[in-house]
Amino acid sequence: MDLELARELAQEADTKIVLFVMDGLGGLPHPETGRTELETAYTPHLDMLARESACGFTVPVGPGITPGSGPGHLALFGYDPMKFNIGRGALEAVGIDFDLRPADVAARGNFCTVDGTRRITDRRAGRISTEEAARLVEGLRSVGADGVEVFVEPVREHRFVFVLRGDGLSDAVSDTDPQKEGVEALSPAATAPEGKTTAAIVAKWVDGARKYLADKAPANMALLRGFAKRPDWPAMPDVFKLRPAAVAHYPMYRGLAKLVGMEALTVGPGIEDSIATLRENWGRFDYFFVHYKYTDTAGEDGDFDRKVAKFEEVDTAIESLIELDPDVLMIAGDHSTPSLMAAHSWHPVPFMLRSRWMRADECGMFSETELQRGSLGTFPAKEALPLAMAHAGRLRKYGA
Amino acid sequence: MDLELARELAQEADTKIVLFVMDGLGGLPHPETGRTELETAYTPHLDMLARESACGFTVPVGPGITPGSGPGHLALFGYDPMKFNIGRGALEAVGIDFDLRPADVAARGNFCTVDGTRRITDRRAGRISTEEAARLVEGLRSVGADGVEVFVEPVREHRFVFVLRGDGLSDAVSDTDPQKEGVEALSPAATAPEGKTTAAIVAKWVDGARKYLADKAPANMALLRGFAKRPDWPAMPDVFKLRPAAVAHYPMYRGLAKLVGMEALTVGPGIEDSIATLRENWGRFDYFFVHYKYTDTAGEDGDFDRKVAKFEEVDTAIESLIELDPDVLMIAGDHSTPSLMAAHSWHPVPFMLRSRWMRADECGMFSETELQRGSLGTFPAKEALPLAMAHAGRLRKYGA
Repeated sequence: MDLELARELAQEADTKIVLFVMDGLGGLPHPETGRTELETAYTPHLDMLARESACGFTVPVGPGITPGSGPGHLALFGYDPMKFNIGRGALEAVGIDFDLRPADVAARGNFCTVDGTRRITDRRAGRISTEEAARLVEGLRSVGADGVEVFVEPVREHRFVFVLRGDGLSDAVSDTDPQKEGVEALSPAATAPEGKTTAAIVAKWVDGARKYLADKAPANMALLRGFAKRPDWPAMPDVFKLRPAAVAHYPMYRGLAKLVGMEALTVGPGIEDSIATLRENWGRFDYFFVHYKYTDTAGEDGDFDRKVAKFEEVDTAIESLIELDPDVLMIAGDHSTPSLMAAHSWHPVPFMLRSRWMRADECGMFSETELQRGSLGTFPAKEALPLAMAHAGRLRKYGA
Repeated sequence: MDLELARELAQEADTKIVLFVMDGLGGLPHPETGRTELETAYTPHLDMLARESACGFTVPVGPGITPGSGPGHLALFGYDPMKFNIGRGALEAVGIDFDLRPADVAARGNFCTVDGTRRITDRRAGRISTEEAARLVEGLRSVGADGVEVFVEPVREHRFVFVLRGDGLSDAVSDTDPQKEGVEALSPAATAPEGKTTAAIVAKWVDGARKYLADKAPANMALLRGFAKRPDWPAMPDVFKLRPAAVAHYPMYRGLAKLVGMEALTVGPGIEDSIATLRENWGRFDYFFVHYKYTDTAGEDGDFDRKVAKFEEVDTAIESLIELDPDVLMIAGDHSTPSLMAAHSWHPVPFMLRSRWMRADECGMFSETELQRGSLGTFPAKEALPLAMAHAGRLRKYGA
């Protein structure tokens, strides 16, 4: 459903929708057992939910397309990820609560190490501590730029956000981060004529940063990527008539949620923290996006057993989420992260939706194999929210 | 398939296609038995057809979207319901064989009752009889309008059609029907600058109607909604090279059929009437849309058992339709109307298509659960006609 139609059909109702996202949910079978991470995990509560839900698979962006975290989540929020693009820089800036203004240009920064010939030896400077990075950020703030304001903000470990504020800035600037090691950092260049001035400002700042960091440790250089302005998107409250809240600990997911008009609640890192926050705020909102990160982290690390354990952790905790008895409960993932690939993948993502308006489904478990019998089939992730809205009595009839 | 491509590929052939529509076909499981209306009904003929057909589900408009009768049918006729919109007024006018001209503006009217403070007490005036409504319509014809011709035509029970004919009329006028009770009728307003004059004409007429009806019974006021002009759409004979006929008793479905260039045959209210009409006209046409209303009526009334009985009625009668042996027989619905919701819903709609060019299918019955094994899967309803055309040898090869 496009947002214009959603705006026309959406209506308020006294119902609650929960979207529980297990990041990187989908997996691939272990070569020895033939079972995926989800199929290996003991998940009685999720399996019970599957027997009570409409089941299927979401396709985050399109067949064969491996999504980043941005498109994977935007699709689940009801936003077509092919239309709603966001640059990494803007996403990181919004994610740390930086007040990114419409004319600002932001980039994601990495502290890194280079050798004597300027070749990158570690793109993440051994994932230096957040404290060490904060000290380097403090120093970088002394590196100015011509005629524009510069902000350097710490994120976590080796990550920082770089923001330029001034007149006539453009985000048509290429990355300095080559995204591999053993080569030199790239020079920022204009990717369109209007990016020329900004690219020159960035180049000068990078030069200053190189000089400042040269004799520092444990990082002696900085890389920038994903130059972007803050997108101006229709907000979920306006389009879908929802009061939406995000229960997400990690900055990037909080940032994404805020870009679509959700209130990002303060929440600790554990799943119990998430569910406690959900319970405390139950009355204030009618749509909750709950984010669980660690299934993806385990998958990205190629750690099959840890991903299995994380599913079991979710399964134990989800009982108290089920007790809140939302009118619509979706269990979903933003993309697959098979441990065997140690990376995001294009594989369709397990999905289930429980409400009182269900057809009989024949899935006995929440697993990649069983979900193939699901009545929802394999469908675009961006249709999950309209489907949930319908089940929550929040969509008017279309046409006479 | 869009209509431009259909126009390019369609060819004539000596084959017959029947689209049998059970209005509001799809349902939801009864909480006690776990079986839907269709699964509860004893339907040996439909079940036999399912074993000989390609089966699946249609999505009338899009995931989560509950369609009105217009979009639900247009999709089955091969017209994208997101592109081909029709206002209620035009639909009602065409449905009663009113000669709606391109410059006319039509609205759907309801006789209603209001109390002493003008608040609506019954939007349908107790569904007054067709005869009583005809008498009130006669009186309303004395209420004129400035500089334009006014037509008031009875429909059925509390319904009438209101048409303005004149120069420079616009359908950018808002409803006076608030679609709820306990509030006053709304004032008609322009929804775009070009609607200003027409809104003023309507306001004056409504005032006259109020005065005329004030001391009448059993209705003392009239409501208008769905101001619309007659759409000018490509016709099925031109686009699909079909000679199409509609076997539909109810005005709205006859109207829809005529808007896409079908000939609406005269037919009685029962399913035997429909099949007799079909048989009588078998040689004159090569596409037949047969409409069965009562499954929807039962669903809308929340009467599970009656909907079950209506399926059994269809099942008995459909034997003689099968005997006509069309080259392609589709059994379809315009949308789901689960008795449990007593309303149209967004749930995908059971569908089957029988022709001699079938792949093996695994559906043992015509039921929501069994159809999940169908080879057609869940697909947009607007693709049903192209599929039938192909099975009828009526689509040329695409590309060299």
